[in-house]
Amino acid sequence: MRAICFYSDYGYEDDFAGTCRAVMKRLAPNVEIIDVTHGIRARDVLGGALVLRNTLPYMPERAVHLAVVDPGVGGTRRGIVLHSGGGRLFVGPDNGLLALAAEADGGITAAFELSRQELWLSPVSATFHGRDIFAPVAAHLAVGMSPAECGRPIEAADLVRLDLPVARIEDGVLYAAAVLIDRFGNVALNVRREQLQGVRLGQLVELECGGERYHAQVATTFADVRRSDIMVLLDMDSYGQVAVAVNEGSAADVLNVRPGDAISLRLSAL
Amino acid sequence: MRAICFYSDYGYEDDFAGTCRAVMKRLAPNVEIIDVTHGIRARDVLGGALVLRNTLPYMPERAVHLAVVDPGVGGTRRGIVLHSGGGRLFVGPDNGLLALAAEADGGITAAFELSRQELWLSPVSATFHGRDIFAPVAAHLAVGMSPAECGRPIEAADLVRLDLPVARIEDGVLYAAAVLIDRFGNVALNVRREQLQGVRLGQLVELECGGERYHAQVATTFADVRRSDIMVLLDMDSYGQVAVAVNEGSAADVLNVRPGDAISLRLSAL
Amino acid sequence: MRAICFYSDYGYEDDFAGTCRAVMKRLAPNVEIIDVTHGIRARDVLGGALVLRNTLPYMPERAVHLAVVDPGVGGTRRGIVLHSGGGRLFVGPDNGLLALAAEADGGITAAFELSRQELWLSPVSATFHGRDIFAPVAAHLAVGMSPAECGRPIEAADLVRLDLPVARIEDGVLYAAAVLIDRFGNVALNVRREQLQGVRLGQLVELECGGERYHAQVATTFADVRRSDIMVLLDMDSYGQVAVAVNEGSAADVLNVRPGDAISLRLSAL
Repeated sequence: MRAICFYSDYGYEDDFAGTCRAVMKRLAPNVEIIDVTHGIRARDVLGGALVLRNTLPYMPERAVHLAVVDPGVGGTRRGIVLHSGGGRLFVGPDNGLLALAAEADGGITAAFELSRQELWLSPVSATFHGRDIFAPVAAHLAVGMSPAECGRPIEAADLVRLDLPVARIEDGVLYAAAVLIDRFGNVALNVRREQLQGVRLGQLVELECGGERYHAQVATTFADVRRSDIMVLLDMDSYGQVAVAVNEGSAADVLNVRPGDAISLRLSAL
Repeated sequence: MRAICFYSDYGYEDDFAGTCRAVMKRLAPNVEIIDVTHGIRARDVLGGALVLRNTLPYMPERAVHLAVVDPGVGGTRRGIVLHSGGGRLFVGPDNGLLALAAEADGGITAAFELSRQELWLSPVSATFHGRDIFAPVAAHLAVGMSPAECGRPIEAADLVRLDLPVARIEDGVLYAAAVLIDRFGNVALNVRREQLQGVRLGQLVELECGGERYHAQVATTFADVRRSDIMVLLDMDSYGQVAVAVNEGSAADVLNVRPGDAISLRLSAL
Repeated sequence: MRAICFYSDYGYEDDFAGTCRAVMKRLAPNVEIIDVTHGIRARDVLGGALVLRNTLPYMPERAVHLAVVDPGVGGTRRGIVLHSGGGRLFVGPDNGLLALAAEADGGITAAFELSRQELWLSPVSATFHGRDIFAPVAAHLAVGMSPAECGRPIEAADLVRLDLPVARIEDGVLYAAAVLIDRFGNVALNVRREQLQGVRLGQLVELECGGERYHAQVATTFADVRRSDIMVLLDMDSYGQVAVAVNEGSAADVLNVRPGDAISLRLSAL
């Protein structure tokens, strides 16, 4: 039996995630369900895709990854299941949420549209496919159903892909964007660690966002700088992402930044 | 063994729900506990009763439904267990929270006051009966204790009932109220789908709330209208409830509406 | 096998707690993990220590208590495991978070620094020791590893201790501080029930906070006073802590008080 790792933007105020869990437990009473997070920002497909990709190496092997951030529910977007080279399965909407993680896990080796309605709850609501389609399909996959039984095969090339915002370097300035902000106010950028290879630990860089300029120190952990100082973390949480943080404080508050906002770093030594 | 489906307004900031879970696991280590939601608004008995009733069909059969929204804790309100015609058990305070769901599940076939103190934790606090009374009773029921062993039988007619706010139609205007608002800002009304039978899909209706007027389109799913348009959903999440929503937006924000607020719909074609 | 009781300030917006759970399930697939709460205020070591101590008697016996409130992660603070006289194990940072609970559970009978790196994930991030060090160690302990195998023994006397703010009585006035505020706005003080022995139920006391004065009634439960009245609860939730509360309201809102704020009570009869 495969474990189910469940990600969504359902939040905790409502019964959404709990009801999906109940649906899965009715179909597969012994399955292990790990609620990785339901705190993805509402409708933030990019944020969800990054969280899914980042956490993958820590999840049980051969898990079913059920992910639901689904602003297009009830419209024309398809439901899909992806099989990765790493042996994982990904269930959710075909809006870019799943492909990033599946590709990081050995690539997409097979993809199917969720078209076999006998697997779904009946009737299917027009607004809650997490409960009526994705959760039951995930439960069937967890207890051994083959992904090919979920519906017709589709080409990986035909999947919807995200436009990942790409950071670029020009004249020694890295033009980046905030992509994920955590509860502590740490701000992950659309920058991979590899893009900052020339930068040295302890170096001061000039950071600009919202029209304001700040000094930030290149660091590997919070304690590398003084309390309340701003730092550029080279590899936040080993996810390979560069982040802006404040020791014992919230970079999001200090810089007044929200997901999607532009942040630039002048990398030349000051 | 019965599964336990746990609902409360305990929130997630505190240990309340987790401590109740621990109490149940000490008494019944192998029981399956599904945290349906602990995000019911603080002290919102009506909201809790609706969530409990709505989600019931998706919960495991013969489950114990432990529900705690309990502003009267420590006062004179009774603790109760209800048995429904559908074979489910409901444990919680006698303040209207449980009866709505039990009646929707084949009616209340037996009711008992929680009076057998040997089943409770000792000492019993005056402020946290979820932990000290309801959770242990639910655990005992889950592993097979009969509800009659919880205490003295009471008449279903003597249970506290909620005053459900009733929507009324007058001169082609439906006078309703917001009863539940979810994280996405969808606003469920105290209106059942059947009350809008004359209305056709795609029809424009005039919506009034907070002294402002809006146009809204009758729809079955978000994608039926353009982005940011207001719609009247005929059957939100298959729960049979009419809701007001905005495609890729928050109706609660757009209309500036909170639970309990009045919303009226002029149903005649515009 | 021991159960794992998991406490943190990781919140629910992010994957932190869910990823730690996944790490533990990979190492110990059959372990019972109880998420007691992840809603401790960010970086509030004192608040976390109190929640851990308060809830201990309700947790499964011989549990592993994994607690992470860790503003010093990546710095010089040690990771530790404590063994209590009550047979429990405590895993987390050596910043005062664990010792209060372990001492309340029969005292600290052994303490070890987490120095055996073979037990950890590799590589270890500089910012997420909950996932990379504490969670895997907790999983190993749950399935039977001895705490002595976690690393070198340390003296209990050398552990970091919290400066618990002490309430004092002067001229009939109790000078206290708010230490924990729950979702309902109940305000727990740094006052043990025993410190109010001379006070009688129903007595009116004068409460001062934020430069304002209020009347409050000494009570054992919410229903002891009229709706919206302020009360001094002698033993909130049986945790032995005195609290300020409002019947069917939020004392935190009424008094405009936050954790750490000073609250004084004039105990002489008015």
